[in-house]
Amino acid sequence: MDVSRLKRYADISRTIEESYVNIQPIQRGGVLTKEARRILVDYGDGYSMCDHCLVGRIDLLENPPVQEFLKDVSEFLDMDEARLTAGCRHAKWVVFNSVCEKGDTVVIDSLAHYTTYLSAEAAGINVVEVPHSGYPEYKIDLDAYADKIEEVKKDTGKYPDLLVLTHVDYIYGNLCDARKVGDIAEEYDIPFLLNAAYTAGVMPVSGKKLKADFIACSGHKSWAAAAPMGILATNYEYVDKVFKKSEIKGTWSGRSFPRKEVSLFGCSPAMGVTSATLMASFPTVVERVNHWDDEVEKTTFLINELEKIKDVHQLGVKPKEHHLVHLEAPSFHSVAKKHSRKGWFLYDEMKDRRITGIQSGLTKHFKLSVYGLSWPQVEYVANSFKDLAQKHDIPVE
Amino acid sequence: MDVSRLKRYADISRTIEESYVNIQPIQRGGVLTKEARRILVDYGDGYSMCDHCLVGRIDLLENPPVQEFLKDVSEFLDMDEARLTAGCRHAKWVVFNSVCEKGDTVVIDSLAHYTTYLSAEAAGINVVEVPHSGYPEYKIDLDAYADKIEEVKKDTGKYPDLLVLTHVDYIYGNLCDARKVGDIAEEYDIPFLLNAAYTAGVMPVSGKKLKADFIACSGHKSWAAAAPMGILATNYEYVDKVFKKSEIKGTWSGRSFPRKEVSLFGCSPAMGVTSATLMASFPTVVERVNHWDDEVEKTTFLINELEKIKDVHQLGVKPKEHHLVHLEAPSFHSVAKKHSRKGWFLYDEMKDRRITGIQSGLTKHFKLSVYGLSWPQVEYVANSFKDLAQKHDIPVE
Repeated sequence: MDVSRLKRYADISRTIEESYVNIQPIQRGGVLTKEARRILVDYGDGYSMCDHCLVGRIDLLENPPVQEFLKDVSEFLDMDEARLTAGCRHAKWVVFNSVCEKGDTVVIDSLAHYTTYLSAEAAGINVVEVPHSGYPEYKIDLDAYADKIEEVKKDTGKYPDLLVLTHVDYIYGNLCDARKVGDIAEEYDIPFLLNAAYTAGVMPVSGKKLKADFIACSGHKSWAAAAPMGILATNYEYVDKVFKKSEIKGTWSGRSFPRKEVSLFGCSPAMGVTSATLMASFPTVVERVNHWDDEVEKTTFLINELEKIKDVHQLGVKPKEHHLVHLEAPSFHSVAKKHSRKGWFLYDEMKDRRITGIQSGLTKHFKLSVYGLSWPQVEYVANSFKDLAQKHDIPVE
Repeated sequence: MDVSRLKRYADISRTIEESYVNIQPIQRGGVLTKEARRILVDYGDGYSMCDHCLVGRIDLLENPPVQEFLKDVSEFLDMDEARLTAGCRHAKWVVFNSVCEKGDTVVIDSLAHYTTYLSAEAAGINVVEVPHSGYPEYKIDLDAYADKIEEVKKDTGKYPDLLVLTHVDYIYGNLCDARKVGDIAEEYDIPFLLNAAYTAGVMPVSGKKLKADFIACSGHKSWAAAAPMGILATNYEYVDKVFKKSEIKGTWSGRSFPRKEVSLFGCSPAMGVTSATLMASFPTVVERVNHWDDEVEKTTFLINELEKIKDVHQLGVKPKEHHLVHLEAPSFHSVAKKHSRKGWFLYDEMKDRRITGIQSGLTKHFKLSVYGLSWPQVEYVANSFKDLAQKHDIPVE
């Protein structure tokens, strides 16, 4: 193999965070804290967390204090136990693979992240969707969980084995009143998985208040951690089931691994920089959820400013309760139709203004977030959109 | 929650790599290259690889050039296609979960990594073990794969659905002649998964020569990448099966994800620093496998030196063909029995000599590796063990 040709892989670089204002919604909550950035080099090597491992499980590690850390994470989420996973998608699969049997049916919201569908598919689980209200609010009909439960019973002869709700969805950024589903889950005695990828780590989430049996979190989406990093928290009732210990035994050797947890593949795949950054950011994360109202205020300000541009509308529930903003912008789309760069003009011209994170090519609908940006940055983003609109003769109030 | 109490999580630190000679075998191949270390901060943020993603799959990304990179990785492994996974354990599970059905039987070697057993268990697969020769060589009886295949046929009514071989095991560091199993797999037309966690990335591995249908690799174990990072490579015959596209469909919304790959949970969980470091180290990795003989020479030198210490013996096949060394040291164990620190004395006293990586508490049996260390470091390790032995009145030749 010609190694000289491969040098370009060593030369990859990324200047986004340093010199641009990044408004990509999947990235805002995953920007590392300065504490996490500080330990990147220390924990860069593979297995860097395992120097002092004695029992072969990272969740039991005393140095660094992962065991204590996970107790604090559980307390933060108001749950009983937590484990580290390879992202939220892995956390959801762990629940599907341990609480359900292949062929079982689960009820999910129809705005669920694609990884909810894929994790279910990987575990051989059928999904039944709870509808939403459609344009322009796309509000999930939470009461319909009860209807769907009965429907599943009628169709399959048994109640669904799990209810799944996306706390805030990734398309419209709608916040659901998870407690409603928690109450229905309790009434039917069906376990309840809350996908908190867009909530836990940026806003307060209490599993007990919401009556969640499982909370799946995304470290790289909302806990200022390197990827892939997930957290699965549960309550005492489900600890043994969801973190089931291995029972496999070697047919010839008799080898067995009774302390290893099956769906975590023995020990969690978080043996290096991902869990280290999660830990290092944790004090900041615990602190920052107290300032969630400020973040919602920034988002509300941004939307008010952007809606001053003709034919720019926020989709999803109003008033906005979360930092993920979905805009419909037929006025920008009209410009795109006539522009030599087509839909790319918006990405290009925002980039000229040192703003990145709008998906390139999109104008009719696009998403953004100003989570964690300073007020001057938020104002700069709002003004940049307004300037850009005026440049293209789109009226601005 | 009392945030001040949490500050210690932000203060974790690790001084191992900077000021110690680390001889922990799971860590030697995962020490980052200087190129990988350079890009840690650039790609530290969650989703840092996804700035320019258009299609929602990291393996198709053009900027950074992941798509081209994976072609080069395939070529390097002499396979047809490759994907990024959350560690080797995830790669093995992907094969179990896509090539086998729940309840199927696979034949594995009896020195397989615990994650092979656990991945099989997570997928609901039964394992049948091929025996090894026991003390002191622990050599896997590769011809017995054929016997076990027939035995499975006799017991279950059908041939096993997969053969799995650990190329180099994690207990004794024995290198297996994988081609033998490849030939048996071909003869019976059973797919063959090679666990190359301890080989690919440090020594030359050709999937085609070994007749492997799948190669599972560990980025953090052997490709100088941050954890968790795995690679699954396959040949054309199995691409569609092992990287099966999603077929799930929303019952109400009709949503579907036909480009997403099921067992990778849609898009691989490698969206940040883990894949970035894997790429950055790749040119060095491709180059370093050409110097594998030098590494074996270092290891052989070390063993020769250590066996000059009375009652210190290398276990596993001799002469040594891999950097993972398992020592039996009854002489050290005798010291431990009388020592106030018991078995910890070895760890303590090596640490005093700025050498780390011997599992603390072990003396009777322990593992080490000098992979990637300089000759002076290797000599320093050998001399340190000899000094330590003499200090405790263990004769040294």
